[in-house]
Amino acid sequence: MIPFLQKLKHIQRKNNSLLCIGLDTDVMKVPEFLYKYEDPQYEFNRLIIDATKDLVCAYKLNIAFYESVGEHSWYTIHHTLARIPEEIVTIGDGKRGDIGSSAEKQAHSLCYDWEFAGTTVNPYMGKDAVEPFMKRKDQCAFVLAITSNKGAKDFQYLKAKGKPLYEHVVLQAKKWNTKKNVGLVVGATKPEDLKRVRKIVPTMPILIPGIGAQKGNLEATVRYGCDKNGELAIINVGRGVIYAGSGDEFADKARASALKYREQINNYRQKYFG
Amino acid sequence: MIPFLQKLKHIQRKNNSLLCIGLDTDVMKVPEFLYKYEDPQYEFNRLIIDATKDLVCAYKLNIAFYESVGEHSWYTIHHTLARIPEEIVTIGDGKRGDIGSSAEKQAHSLCYDWEFAGTTVNPYMGKDAVEPFMKRKDQCAFVLAITSNKGAKDFQYLKAKGKPLYEHVVLQAKKWNTKKNVGLVVGATKPEDLKRVRKIVPTMPILIPGIGAQKGNLEATVRYGCDKNGELAIINVGRGVIYAGSGDEFADKARASALKYREQINNYRQKYFG
Repeated sequence: MIPFLQKLKHIQRKNNSLLCIGLDTDVMKVPEFLYKYEDPQYEFNRLIIDATKDLVCAYKLNIAFYESVGEHSWYTIHHTLARIPEEIVTIGDGKRGDIGSSAEKQAHSLCYDWEFAGTTVNPYMGKDAVEPFMKRKDQCAFVLAITSNKGAKDFQYLKAKGKPLYEHVVLQAKKWNTKKNVGLVVGATKPEDLKRVRKIVPTMPILIPGIGAQKGNLEATVRYGCDKNGELAIINVGRGVIYAGSGDEFADKARASALKYREQINNYRQKYFG
Repeated sequence: MIPFLQKLKHIQRKNNSLLCIGLDTDVMKVPEFLYKYEDPQYEFNRLIIDATKDLVCAYKLNIAFYESVGEHSWYTIHHTLARIPEEIVTIGDGKRGDIGSSAEKQAHSLCYDWEFAGTTVNPYMGKDAVEPFMKRKDQCAFVLAITSNKGAKDFQYLKAKGKPLYEHVVLQAKKWNTKKNVGLVVGATKPEDLKRVRKIVPTMPILIPGIGAQKGNLEATVRYGCDKNGELAIINVGRGVIYAGSGDEFADKARASALKYREQINNYRQKYFG
């Protein structure tokens, strides 16, 4: 059993990449030629994975894009995960969290059935609601701190005891991190706040969505999201990579896009971390 | 299309009941004689529903108890819902919420595929993260305000601008309620706070878990959770009903337990609302 952080660092170095590809595969958007297969969603993922697996540190699957397809999604997730090389980090993005016995059940699917290396969890219900996702040292729970959507401002920035709510979440998550398997989610759309978070948790992994379609700032994301060695940021791009092309050559286009993102990220790493 | 509140009031009056049974059916806990069936979890639900459908206003299914079983859960949920009489409220308890496009996918399963009349949503990511669950007037999004677990105190009681976080959530949810299809979740374990919430939202439905195994106070729950007519509280009991018995007669025991809860609730309604 390889501890999560060790696995993450290994693949970030081996593939020289902080890029995570978001396999949020909308079955309605896969190229037509895949419709001849029994599971077009899996075939799409397979071709993306095969075309990009030397360029990424992680793949993130938003569970909703699968469960919305119906009963077969359970297999689609299994098959997709089986196609991803063992050494690459997989993240099950379900934003889960519930009271004890229910959270155990949620974690059962994500951590023991599919066996994602990382999961995303929602902190609103507190520690015991996310604890089942932090049981194994080889699995990391990424706690939502600042999200990349418009509604992030509704509650995450409310000030309590002089600090925004998200900062309370960050401080708690840091306390929960006794096994070095807790991370945070911070949207790329708020670079100044990402900087603030990284200061509080210098050695925790941060999953950063919002690059690409959501127009987050990549330079600031690299500069403020990385640890002091220019690592431990997991920079997610979804639609910007997987839908870079739309025809028969979509996987090549995805590879070209992933290459471009990896290069941009590495240029900024070079600039700020030498 | 019957508006959600109208449907809820109708069944609460018809069955003279505020009781919601939590069908959080753990496949490992169903009586052995059900193992001869192809889908023991469904058979368990079917027998509970048939034995209690004249005693409840709602059934709540915690999605995690199904998805953790695997691919067949998609059907188990469909079949269970098909067994519930049309006029009874069904609640898909998934505690969802995500950025726009992902929340749309989450809502697709719960609101359009399974077609639950109500869903539970987590407010941390703000309005747009839960909006897809409030689209249809015949479907209600129950926003988590105060949960019944220990971790509720981690963030929900942080004070911002003189008010606990949960109160900010309640006030926002009230604003979102332009179609009269937003409700709240408030745990029965915090009756004083339930009172406070009911004061702020005199006409919104409140889903109240925490009675039974979680030892919430039933009298205070009825007194403070109802609207001025002694209605609109949806009082959930899960394990306390469905596992009242464990052998061949489990459904009869569940009926007896549901009868007892309905009677206790109605006695308190009589006492406080006449």
